[in-house]
Amino acid sequence: MQSLVIHNVRPMGGEATSVTVSDGRIQSYGWHVQEGAELLDGGGAILIPGLVEAHTHMDKTLLGMGWYRNEVGPRLIDKIDNERMQRRVLGIDPARQSARQAVLAASLGTTHIRTHVDVDTEVGVAGIVGVLETRERYRDLVDIELVAFPQSGMLIRPGTVELMERALQLGAQVVGGLDPAGIDRDPKGHLDVVFGLAERYAVPVDIHLHEPAELGAFSMELIIERTKALGLQGKVTISHAFCLGMTDQDYVAALIDELAQAQIHILTTAPASRPAPAVKRLVEAGIVVAAGSDGVRDTWGPYNNPDMLERAVLVGLRNNLRRDDEVALALDTCTYGGARMMGLDDYGLKPGCRADLVLLDGETLAEAVVSRRPRKIVIKGGKVIARDGTASIPAP
Amino acid sequence: MQSLVIHNVRPMGGEATSVTVSDGRIQSYGWHVQEGAELLDGGGAILIPGLVEAHTHMDKTLLGMGWYRNEVGPRLIDKIDNERMQRRVLGIDPARQSARQAVLAASLGTTHIRTHVDVDTEVGVAGIVGVLETRERYRDLVDIELVAFPQSGMLIRPGTVELMERALQLGAQVVGGLDPAGIDRDPKGHLDVVFGLAERYAVPVDIHLHEPAELGAFSMELIIERTKALGLQGKVTISHAFCLGMTDQDYVAALIDELAQAQIHILTTAPASRPAPAVKRLVEAGIVVAAGSDGVRDTWGPYNNPDMLERAVLVGLRNNLRRDDEVALALDTCTYGGARMMGLDDYGLKPGCRADLVLLDGETLAEAVVSRRPRKIVIKGGKVIARDGTASIPAP
Repeated sequence: MQSLVIHNVRPMGGEATSVTVSDGRIQSYGWHVQEGAELLDGGGAILIPGLVEAHTHMDKTLLGMGWYRNEVGPRLIDKIDNERMQRRVLGIDPARQSARQAVLAASLGTTHIRTHVDVDTEVGVAGIVGVLETRERYRDLVDIELVAFPQSGMLIRPGTVELMERALQLGAQVVGGLDPAGIDRDPKGHLDVVFGLAERYAVPVDIHLHEPAELGAFSMELIIERTKALGLQGKVTISHAFCLGMTDQDYVAALIDELAQAQIHILTTAPASRPAPAVKRLVEAGIVVAAGSDGVRDTWGPYNNPDMLERAVLVGLRNNLRRDDEVALALDTCTYGGARMMGLDDYGLKPGCRADLVLLDGETLAEAVVSRRPRKIVIKGGKVIARDGTASIPAP
Repeated sequence: MQSLVIHNVRPMGGEATSVTVSDGRIQSYGWHVQEGAELLDGGGAILIPGLVEAHTHMDKTLLGMGWYRNEVGPRLIDKIDNERMQRRVLGIDPARQSARQAVLAASLGTTHIRTHVDVDTEVGVAGIVGVLETRERYRDLVDIELVAFPQSGMLIRPGTVELMERALQLGAQVVGGLDPAGIDRDPKGHLDVVFGLAERYAVPVDIHLHEPAELGAFSMELIIERTKALGLQGKVTISHAFCLGMTDQDYVAALIDELAQAQIHILTTAPASRPAPAVKRLVEAGIVVAAGSDGVRDTWGPYNNPDMLERAVLVGLRNNLRRDDEVALALDTCTYGGARMMGLDDYGLKPGCRADLVLLDGETLAEAVVSRRPRKIVIKGGKVIARDGTASIPAP
């Protein structure tokens, strides 16, 4: 494979240098004459590692399907039920829709995605099959990791557990879960099944936990207990974790200590309208914090788009991260935080890391983040896959 | 003045029609052959009235000045003191900086701005003079209303009250105030001065109230008492009003009743990291709710930009407004809400209203808001002043 030399880039906004890429990996920095290498002018752009979308739902985005008029009720269950219904009414094709999001995300500099894919007794594993198809077809654009996700509940809908197993057999890499008390009404039962699957299939765990305050904290304790009992430290993520934004600060402090000890990761979308984990505090406690867009333009809501620089801005706004070093922390949840959550060992800007890179137009790193201009160049596995906001492969 | 006919626009996303504008006002809808009229193809765009930026600080934006590296401390007073210092260090010219924001805002479809301009014993009224210059120079692009704003306190800095008077004599149209307890340490004294100036100069009032919970509620009560005593119903705005997001819901309900009776308007920036007024609840109580960007790229923080469609998205995210009718409500705070707050009688899309119009690219109104694409056409006083995101007059 031909080497690639990108001249005049500023890693993380620092001093200008050149970076040499070969065999899909970062080889070295500094000026090297390399015969036959492809040359690329970085134009003084800021070099960052690929953006990491650590929580989304690619199987059910409505991108490109015409505007969905949202008239859904206010409860969580309203949105879950409505979505199952709309899947039939609108004809949401998981392969096509996940492909649309994959291409859009890649054009925005996202090189890795963890996506929670619905598994239920209506759709079965069709969502998993569709997203697996996208994962293979677009593997040169973006790495996709699938979570088998029991969106409609597991114990309350007999047959779901078997479908979850089937999803893992087919190739889903992570076992998901959802509000063990709130949806399945049986926190012990739900979590025993989730962790049982994790043990049997040797896969990590990622559980949606919207449960509020002390209820969410109880479910969180059950997750921590199981993580330790099964030796799954470093393999478990709690998504949303609204309860960490609860009023009882002593309880929050105790939970943070326990999460850190159990090496459980926290995923936030930085929701403006809900209590939410305090990113800086968690990071200071040594907890890996990742960020995600959640559902993009779906039946749940219209606002989200898969731009992880916009997500960094939302993380910054939600957590009042104003200083330049704090903006860098917000970005970190959308890069290194997600990579650590997903266990990507060869992620980053060091020589030897995979050449998954983004060139940002910006005066400083913070300026590039808040401006969110079209990505100048996106490189995946050492190859240019997007320029000026447009991916090299069109979306279906 | 030549008439203008814009073909094929969809008012608020409704049925396509044509709109005829003459003498700077909307004349009629429907197809009219008007000899000698200028014709404009709306291309099926969505027609909305001009966006209203109801709270910003144009005198101290750092737009176009190179990136300001923010290393400021966490307290409100840290930010206030740092800003006065940076004004000297960086050389922030209020005329030039407000002009930059005026042109950028106009290019984004903002046709009316209320801006709080610093008045203190260091800058004196130089900020007021500078922004008044911009108001005159860019009057064909955007209407600017100035609030004389005692950012550094009034009673704690002798000489400030006299400068506030001078600002009103020079042409500031609104008297401002700031955290009567938190900054001036004398809620009665501060508010008596603010309302005294309002009475003497017959101007509306707009008070920054960041004070939290019960403290802010007490200051709010003092504002309500003075509004009623002086017959200033409909003339008073409380900006930020974080205390309306406090835990004690009974107290909040009582405050909302009193605010509605006193016809006091609420301005929100929809802050994600602070308690905040619940927009839908206030609107349902009959209170005018407007939205603003607050400071744009200044020494306070890096995130804000003057795009009022982005502000509508942030209002929607902060208030969990997901349905299409709710997205329209979020937009309303950035259009009609601001116009009512500022007392713009001839604002809107009805015949007779001033032709301050924006053509949005979008499938539906909600889609246009969340997509935030460059504004196709902006019309101010019947004339096209921006196309495809670029204003007809360059920024300095």
